Amino acid sequence: MAMANAAVDVLGVGHAIVDILAPTTDAFLTEHGIAKNAMTLVDGFRADMLGRSMKGAVEASGGSAANTMVGIASFGGTAGFIGKVNDDRLGQVFIEDIRSSGVAFDCAPAKGKVATASSHILITPDGHRSMNTFLGCASALEDADAAPARVAAAKILYVEGYLWDTDAAKAVIRAAISRAKAAGRKVAFTLSDPFCVGRWRDEFKALLESDIDILFANEAEAKALVESDRFDVAFQALRAWGKAAAITRSEAGSVVLDAGRVHILEAEPVAHVADTTGAGDQYAAGFLYGYARNLPLDTCGRLGGLAAAEVISHIGPRPQTSLKSLAAKAGLL
Amino acid sequence: MAMANAAVDVLGVGHAIVDILAPTTDAFLTEHGIAKNAMTLVDGFRADMLGRSMKGAVEASGGSAANTMVGIASFGGTAGFIGKVNDDRLGQVFIEDIRSSGVAFDCAPAKGKVATASSHILITPDGHRSMNTFLGCASALEDADAAPARVAAAKILYVEGYLWDTDAAKAVIRAAISRAKAAGRKVAFTLSDPFCVGRWRDEFKALLESDIDILFANEAEAKALVESDRFDVAFQALRAWGKAAAITRSEAGSVVLDAGRVHILEAEPVAHVADTTGAGDQYAAGFLYGYARNLPLDTCGRLGGLAAAEVISHIGPRPQTSLKSLAAKAGLL
Repeated sequence: MAMANAAVDVLGVGHAIVDILAPTTDAFLTEHGIAKNAMTLVDGFRADMLGRSMKGAVEASGGSAANTMVGIASFGGTAGFIGKVNDDRLGQVFIEDIRSSGVAFDCAPAKGKVATASSHILITPDGHRSMNTFLGCASALEDADAAPARVAAAKILYVEGYLWDTDAAKAVIRAAISRAKAAGRKVAFTLSDPFCVGRWRDEFKALLESDIDILFANEAEAKALVESDRFDVAFQALRAWGKAAAITRSEAGSVVLDAGRVHILEAEPVAHVADTTGAGDQYAAGFLYGYARNLPLDTCGRLGGLAAAEVISHIGPRPQTSLKSLAAKAGLL
Repeated sequence: MAMANAAVDVLGVGHAIVDILAPTTDAFLTEHGIAKNAMTLVDGFRADMLGRSMKGAVEASGGSAANTMVGIASFGGTAGFIGKVNDDRLGQVFIEDIRSSGVAFDCAPAKGKVATASSHILITPDGHRSMNTFLGCASALEDADAAPARVAAAKILYVEGYLWDTDAAKAVIRAAISRAKAAGRKVAFTLSDPFCVGRWRDEFKALLESDIDILFANEAEAKALVESDRFDVAFQALRAWGKAAAITRSEAGSVVLDAGRVHILEAEPVAHVADTTGAGDQYAAGFLYGYARNLPLDTCGRLGGLAAAEVISHIGPRPQTSLKSLAAKAGLL
């Protein structure tokens, strides 16, 4: 799996979203008709209304692939991000956060007046998170965002399955993939969500056969892909596929495979799980960092597990400790 | 893995032990100096004393390999057992129980006056089991017990690692193994216990290289064998070994391998875990039954998981429901 020379380890493509988090009560959820402990898509009007009602909110840039790129930078890797924000206040927040994390971001702001994506997240005293996501302009990617030179500059192109829901984003992703292939780069893909797999199963399977070199899935997503409730059925299918895959299994750790190799890895111990948001994103960060640096396959998986353990030990989807020093302390780098 | 014709599926060799179970209080444990939730070896004097002190005790034949043979019979397989009891009351209990379960048992009673093995098991209200095992005559196996015709009559010879602690038993096992090999049979072995692995690591490793075709280990035993705290290190070592292995992981299911194949199997769901004693023994029963009948490797592991789930859902180390009908209901047979 030796990687061709390239300027950047990984270039991510995904939804650019700013999380707006506030503590709340169950009564607030009931009053505002919010589904508890779930992710609900909302429109701009409702997002504004929730924003005005939430007291003591804090903002934190998020988005699945964006979180992963920030994790790669925290490992000391180099990363860029393709995503769309508007020229509004939340767009500025997103850009400042991702750049200050050391991730290159150069996409032009969205055309038109659709606002930057946000997710209003209410945290009840029992620790549950009720998310209200307004996708805004996040999927309005343009061909220029995936310019050939930008794509060719990264060893690995990493694509978030969530983006597959709009034709515009899909077209840009297909262009980015063919440009990555033409430049001899690897293409990595995350299935993102079991419902997402349900909507796009056949297209995802076709992509796997034609273009994807590295697949990320959690157990539920892998099972959804093969339409089985048995983990082993998904595992056998990915082994037969024959390329690199990492399947995460929460507290049961992960299974990584590549060509004939299989590693069964335990989860890193975590003293207290504060918030599981972002575990999969940070796992992908560790794995991709290791893979881009030609580290052994089991080390890639262990770097993923280490990053996932860090992010679930506190609230918020991005690392709060240098992943590079954690990995060094664990003897992995 | 097609099996040669033979009269019996599996012949087990192990300690013949009768369990004596009684409910008790923490105060009783303290008063009698019994280590809670552990297995302690005791002598005959202490076993008698405990027997006299325990109120409302029930007897249930046990022993690891013996339990496995009973499980194989419950699947509709054919099994025999080599073990040693004395011509005393508990010896009669053991023989009657194993024969009435459909397992052939023809070993002569022990010479001398050492009593049949027993394990006095105290169950506290929190469900913990404190075991006081008197091995008695259980390891006093004789060469005639492993007569060539008896060994050659079984497709698979299954040996309990626990027996490795005495030279007499070890000599009989070595003879049985060479007779099984001479007859073209398979040899299966269970590591039994991580402390047992610690005592006999080098001899077990030599046995693996020279004689064993099918290995059973739980996660702790497999890690002890390779002296690593990482499951993947044990898994890679057993893959490199290249023969059949089943590694059980409690609620995380099991991993089975054979030549190039690997299956990662989930645990069967259990509504309420009443008593985990015997889970590994019954897993081995399901696996060996399937293996002897040339069923696919993943089916062998799933039969094991099914039998383990049955036995942990009630108190006592032997199945209380027909494993054959459970397996049929699950679509595995």
